[in-house]
Amino acid sequence: MRFRLKPKETSFYELFATAADNVLSGSKLLMELLGADAATRVEIGERMRAAEHAGDDVTHAIFHELNSSFVTPFDREDIYRLASLLDDIMDFMEEAVDLVVLYEIDELPKGVESQIEVLGRAAELTAAAMPRLRDMRDLNEYWIEVNRLENQADQVHRKLLAQLFNGGFEAIEVMKLKQIVDVLEEAADAFESVANTVETIVVKES
Amino acid sequence: MRFRLKPKETSFYELFATAADNVLSGSKLLMELLGADAATRVEIGERMRAAEHAGDDVTHAIFHELNSSFVTPFDREDIYRLASLLDDIMDFMEEAVDLVVLYEIDELPKGVESQIEVLGRAAELTAAAMPRLRDMRDLNEYWIEVNRLENQADQVHRKLLAQLFNGGFEAIEVMKLKQIVDVLEEAADAFESVANTVETIVVKES
Amino acid sequence: MRFRLKPKETSFYELFATAADNVLSGSKLLMELLGADAATRVEIGERMRAAEHAGDDVTHAIFHELNSSFVTPFDREDIYRLASLLDDIMDFMEEAVDLVVLYEIDELPKGVESQIEVLGRAAELTAAAMPRLRDMRDLNEYWIEVNRLENQADQVHRKLLAQLFNGGFEAIEVMKLKQIVDVLEEAADAFESVANTVETIVVKES
Repeated sequence: MRFRLKPKETSFYELFATAADNVLSGSKLLMELLGADAATRVEIGERMRAAEHAGDDVTHAIFHELNSSFVTPFDREDIYRLASLLDDIMDFMEEAVDLVVLYEIDELPKGVESQIEVLGRAAELTAAAMPRLRDMRDLNEYWIEVNRLENQADQVHRKLLAQLFNGGFEAIEVMKLKQIVDVLEEAADAFESVANTVETIVVKES
Repeated sequence: MRFRLKPKETSFYELFATAADNVLSGSKLLMELLGADAATRVEIGERMRAAEHAGDDVTHAIFHELNSSFVTPFDREDIYRLASLLDDIMDFMEEAVDLVVLYEIDELPKGVESQIEVLGRAAELTAAAMPRLRDMRDLNEYWIEVNRLENQADQVHRKLLAQLFNGGFEAIEVMKLKQIVDVLEEAADAFESVANTVETIVVKES
Repeated sequence: MRFRLKPKETSFYELFATAADNVLSGSKLLMELLGADAATRVEIGERMRAAEHAGDDVTHAIFHELNSSFVTPFDREDIYRLASLLDDIMDFMEEAVDLVVLYEIDELPKGVESQIEVLGRAAELTAAAMPRLRDMRDLNEYWIEVNRLENQADQVHRKLLAQLFNGGFEAIEVMKLKQIVDVLEEAADAFESVANTVETIVVKES
């Protein structure tokens, strides 16, 4: 029987996996939003809010575990950052859906679909990476790919802004849409920060 | 005579209480702003700037104490975060008043009053909580209530945005007002972060 | 021969000096942007992107060094913060140039020149201060002056916003210009945060 020096490890890994799975569910709701009619959007908004609340509970559980644990599997600050960032992603995705409903957006510009696809891909990679934190295996490709995706998201975002500003839209409409595409870009940034935090954890342990 | 293991404790508690009292003064100036005429607004702006400078001095005193103390009453990172967040709140409130003056806003939308009331309530709770950090008593209700207030602020904020965007305002006016209601929402978020930091401190000590 | 207790010190100092030199180059490219025609702007944008990539490499080298070093010349969190902030400044400056090109801005408002001059001065002071981290000499004036510059930048920024909003510009044009002047203000804020971090490091060592 292997002596377990870090008895609290297990729950941290499980909690991070749960948080990332939840983010993945959120990204799928974003995808459903595209092409949904007004009534369906409201219903997606409710499911998104439920997912965000579930995320809050996981974040709270991680913080509680962190604050009451004497020994942690990796640096406390990295655990704190990882949990906060996964929580931020859920918040940004929930905000995006809520704004689409609240502002009664008729049609999302084409580029938003690309933004949401990139987020979906980043969410899949993140959900697949979290369980590998336990043995720190095969995480290299994950963070390289998420960094590449963020660069792609950045390009899409800037092109979208140029489109909004030079596309003959009405000013108020531009403001509404800009707020939505900006919050989706913030979600993409947060995925990259998650990946960078994972890299930090791995480098410290190696 | 009781042996004092942590001789620097006292001043940290006093400094945090002073910082929170200062934030409370700021929130009262925000309240005065509602319904004030142009000349009075300018004068409120000057008092707010003075309050913000007083806040800067307290923040600086906390950082100096933190950097030159060998022993601190709770984790250095938590002291740093708490001081920075209280400082942020003052900055946001000062910015809000300054923007109202600078943009020569005629009338603030109704919802801004609700935002400012929520900030006032959060400021009272925070000022009452800081002195209790010393013996860590009765802080539970404080952070639960501030979290509830932040959710309320969030609802008010989103409704305000929808109002601005769908209310037949002129685009430039929407931009000005949006900047003001956004900075008030940032203040509400920062109150919640203060409460979460206090929770972190209490959980670690328990 | 002096015994060297902290063998890894040298590279950190050198890396920070390199990062700050790179920021200084970026601020000079910003200056070139003023008055440049459309074709030259595109070319400046390419050089800015190259400078930002060079900055990314330095940041990555600092993080790698930090995560793999057992002993560091000053607190890990301060090294992390300093490197992140210098990286942020490059990102903000690159974004500003990119937006000017992307939005096909005809003429930048007069105040932008003042913003860029302040950034240039802050960059010079920062590049001159970084090599002095090694012996912690003469850093007082640096951070006092950068704090003063940030206050100046803040005044310029708020006046610019009032000008944009009350200057009879078209709403879409205001949005474009606001995004650019806001990102330049974020760069000025980040210079102040760098200076505050340097102050923290010095106070801890003294």
